[in-house]
Parts: sequence; C-alpha cells; structure tokens
Amino acid sequence: MRYYIGVDIGGMSIKVGVVEQSGKLAIKNTFETRIDQTAESVVRQLGDFILEQINLAGLSISEIAGIGVGIPGTVHENIVRYSNNLHWSMVPIVDILASQTGFPKEKIFAENDANVAILGEKYCGVCKDVEHCVMITLGTGVGTGIVSHGTLITGNGSCGAEGGHTVIDPKGARCTCGRRGCFETFASATALMRMTNDAITKNPDSDLATLAKEKGVTGKTVFDAYKTGDKTARRIVKKYFSYITLGIVNIANLLRPEMVVLGGGVANEGEWFIKTIQKQVDKDVYGGSTVNPPVVIKKASLGNDAGIIGAASLVMYSLK
Amino acid sequence: MRYYIGVDIGGMSIKVGVVEQSGKLAIKNTFETRIDQTAESVVRQLGDFILEQINLAGLSISEIAGIGVGIPGTVHENIVRYSNNLHWSMVPIVDILASQTGFPKEKIFAENDANVAILGEKYCGVCKDVEHCVMITLGTGVGTGIVSHGTLITGNGSCGAEGGHTVIDPKGARCTCGRRGCFETFASATALMRMTNDAITKNPDSDLATLAKEKGVTGKTVFDAYKTGDKTARRIVKKYFSYITLGIVNIANLLRPEMVVLGGGVANEGEWFIKTIQKQVDKDVYGGSTVNPPVVIKKASLGNDAGIIGAASLVMYSLK
Repeated sequence: MRYYIGVDIGGMSIKVGVVEQSGKLAIKNTFETRIDQTAESVVRQLGDFILEQINLAGLSISEIAGIGVGIPGTVHENIVRYSNNLHWSMVPIVDILASQTGFPKEKIFAENDANVAILGEKYCGVCKDVEHCVMITLGTGVGTGIVSHGTLITGNGSCGAEGGHTVIDPKGARCTCGRRGCFETFASATALMRMTNDAITKNPDSDLATLAKEKGVTGKTVFDAYKTGDKTARRIVKKYFSYITLGIVNIANLLRPEMVVLGGGVANEGEWFIKTIQKQVDKDVYGGSTVNPPVVIKKASLGNDAGIIGAASLVMYSLK
Repeated sequence: MRYYIGVDIGGMSIKVGVVEQSGKLAIKNTFETRIDQTAESVVRQLGDFILEQINLAGLSISEIAGIGVGIPGTVHENIVRYSNNLHWSMVPIVDILASQTGFPKEKIFAENDANVAILGEKYCGVCKDVEHCVMITLGTGVGTGIVSHGTLITGNGSCGAEGGHTVIDPKGARCTCGRRGCFETFASATALMRMTNDAITKNPDSDLATLAKEKGVTGKTVFDAYKTGDKTARRIVKKYFSYITLGIVNIANLLRPEMVVLGGGVANEGEWFIKTIQKQVDKDVYGGSTVNPPVVIKKASLGNDAGIIGAASLVMYSLK
C-alpha cells in the first residue's frame, strides 16, 4: 500500500497525517506554529516531525509516495510567496523540506489551502472522480478551489480562484480587497453574523434578539431563530440564501461544474440548507438543469481532517 | 507546410478558409447558410465546399492537418446539441463531415464560436503562447471564451464559459437567461445602445441626442458624443466603463488570466478605450497588479477572419 503525508499549516498549529490512498488516516499529530521563529526554522521542525510520524506509523520512507502541504496564503511553483497569517514571505518550503527530510523535491508539493480542499474532496471525498468541481468555503471569508477538466485552476502566478472576490452587488459593503459587494461580503460567516447583529439592533424585540442575548451571536444564531418562525430571522435567511445562490450560479455559469461543494461552519446547518440552495441553483443556472446537466450542491465531507486529507490529495493529483 | 481548414458557420453565411500555421489565409470563400434545408443537407454541402477549397488552393488532402468548425450554439463532444440561430438540434456534424469529405473523424473538430475565438487569438493572434487568457466579445450579447493552464475551459457538457451570464448588479435589467443584472445586460453593444437611447429620451437637448438624430444610434454614438465633451454622453460612458471593468475583474479574480482580449464592435473604439479599462483593472484586480502579475487588456487582433482562423486554431489545439 502507498501512503501520503498530508500537512495542514495553520496560524495556530501544524497538523501532520499519514494518509492512505482512500483518505483514511493511519496516524495524525499536531505541533504548535511558532510564528515568533523564522519560516525556515519552522519548516525544518516540520521536516523532523514528518519523519517522526512515518516512524510512529511503523512505515519506511519507501512506502511514502510524497509529501503535500496546504498553506493559508499565496503559493506558486512550490514557493510560499506570501502568507499573512504566518508572516511568511518568499519561503522555498519544498527545498527546505527536501533538505531536512531527504525526500526528493519531485515528491514534495505545496499549495494554497483552498486549492488543497477541493483536491481532498475530489480524491477522497464527496466529488471522487468528478472532473469539474468547485469548493466554496463559507468561513471568515469565502474561499474557492476549482477543478475544471480535471485540472486544478489556480491562474497566472497562482493568483486566481478568488471566487470570494467577485462583486455580486456593487452597492454592497466594502470588501477587504478594496471593491464593494464581493460575494464574500454577503456569504461568509462573518457577513451572516454582521447581518444578524444589524437585524438585532433594528429589531430588539425579535426572537432573534432574545436568542442572541441568551447564547451570543454565531453563524448559527439566525438559523436557530428562523426555525422558531421569527420574522426578522426569516428575512435575513431569505436574503442570505438569495445572495449565496447568486454567487454560486455566477461561478457555475462560468465553469459549469458538475458539483459545488460547500464547506465551513455555515454549511453544517443541515440537509435543508443544501436543498434550499440546490432548488434555486437548478432554477437560475444558465440553460437550466434539465436539458443541460445539473450543478449538484453538496456539503463538504471530510470534516476536521479535511486539511490533512486535502494536502495528501495534492500528492495524488500531482503524481497522477 | 501544414494547412488547416477553418469553418465559421453563421446564421447568414458559412465561411471556409484554408489556413497556414501562422494564421495566414491561403484562400477563403463563403456560401449561403440555407436554414430552410435540413442540417444534414447543409453540412453535406459544406463538406463538398471544403473539398473544393482545398482543390482551389492547389493542395492535396494529405497536406491538410484537419478541419475545425465554429458554431453559434452549444457543441459537446463534436455534436451540435443546440443552435438557436441555425435551428439545429443534435447534429452529429463531425460524423457527417467525415462521411462527406473522407477525412477521418479524428481530424475534424467542432466547438462553440466563442470558444473558437479565444483559440484563434491564442494560436495565431494577440495572446500567442499565453497559457491563461480570456476573450470577451461585446456584441449583441457578451460571449466569453476561456483558456486556463493551456486548457480550453468549457465545463461539464460544454455548458460553461458563460461569463456574460454572471450577475454584477441584481438590480439591473432582466437578462434573456432569466436572471437580473447579468454582465451582458451592462456590457453588450445592445446594452450600450439601450443606455444611449434612454439617455437621449431623458436629455433631448444633449449633443448626444443631436448626433443620434443625424446618424442614428449605434454602439459608437455615445463615444462620438463623449469626445465632443457632451455631459450626458460622459455620464453613460463613465457608467459603461465602471460596469465593464467590474465584470472583467470578476472573471479575472476567478481565473487570473495573463491576458483579457476584448472583441466585438465596441472594442474597436480605439486605444483609449482599452487603456481606460486597463487602468481600472490594474487598480481593482485582486491583490493589485504590481506584486501579483498584471492582467493585460488587449483588443482582439484577427478582424473579419477571426471566425475562420479560430476554427483552424481549434485543429491546432486539438492535435497539439
């Protein structure tokens, strides 16, 4: 059996897993991301940590197909050009890992974490063997990963796949990217919480306000109030669905994926959340979804280990 | 030298050219599109016409690398699934052409005309050897053709690359696709003429209105009045630029092309038109255009023979 190393680098911790072809984890462990140290020092520690995990899994180097690394930032040609979260700039992560682990460079791969996420779903998750698929992660922002005609679409200098930064209403809120009304400003968990808080201020007597007072506001609050029949919550949820669908259909009309995978906390709202979006996408997508092939909406399937499995899938993709 | 047959099928006429590797036309001729006849009959006539052109060019079949056909409609796996303009449905164009010409099926290719257009620019035009490029044609509608990582992006069932149908303002005009405020409803020549006519009705004393009375309204009228300093025209032109840039940057953020090629009559407005858009795109595109690679805006370069050269380029692309 062949094994893959998946590394999920985050601002707080670095997760490393030894992953089977199926996506099953043989072993996984975590160490702290020391952002007070140089990138080179952190990557060298990572190299040692990887070798330890292979050892702990009772495997030899020859059983490892390669090492994949997912990083929050811009990664191009295996160099971390910039990561705001990690305070890294122009880090030749593959060269350093190769020198520290003894793995040949040709077996080590690094990519942006949103790109890695769609590969995880394509190789080990809900869109296995799907040639056209897009992952949209509804988190602090809106991240997108794109596979089209079986190719990971990252664009020139790996600066593309920024679906969160497509304007869907120029009268919307100012986005961190400088424009107004990006998809991200409507569809992220942050946006949903902002809309929830605004509605609470305007409707202090609503069930939504009461619920928020009891439990605080999260991306879930407005959905919980919606289920009690609260009118204020219904208005927000309706608006949220209309915008999220708008953004998905825009991306779908450009790329016509077979599947759109929704990730992030908000997407965990349940089957009704996915079904509501599916219904509207079926109606709005270019040429409809009966004569033309449908764009199927699915919830992300890899849970907490998505980052590790995605990074391991980057190896599967790169060596295919 | 290798030659390529390029066929540009339109609702009025079918243009056939014998094209050199460079995109230069050895010969070109046209015959009427008989939409009163069956698709099979028209395609068989086309087959005979192609053989005639090869003969007229003084070439033998063995010198022809292949036949490429560009069609206004949905083409998937070499079958014309649907063409509104031609009244064609499920036409196995490659099979018919193969039987009529004696060319093997493996050397005949058919594609949607917007997809063929970007291949023409990539193989014989302004974005030669560019691996990430998008063509946006500003005509009756807004057509888009996409090449990303060297691959023609057509999506599942070849139903993608519909960049004209991405909503950029949900309060915009109703689009033919059913949604509101698609890029097409702001950026097409049709949209520009609608905006011009609306402005004339509201400002009957403007230079724009006078000019329109003299010469009639085309996609050029508002630009001509703009150049005389007319305030009404300036307002429309400013609005048009803001929307066209918005749509381009949306597509650019998703695909990060190295080059965006603008085609259609409106794009012929001149160098200032391209430069104005370039300036705003440089400013708005995700992460800017200094640290990240710029998205270069260019005017389409192939002129009246673009359809033929594009179709010939489809053969170069498919046999590469």
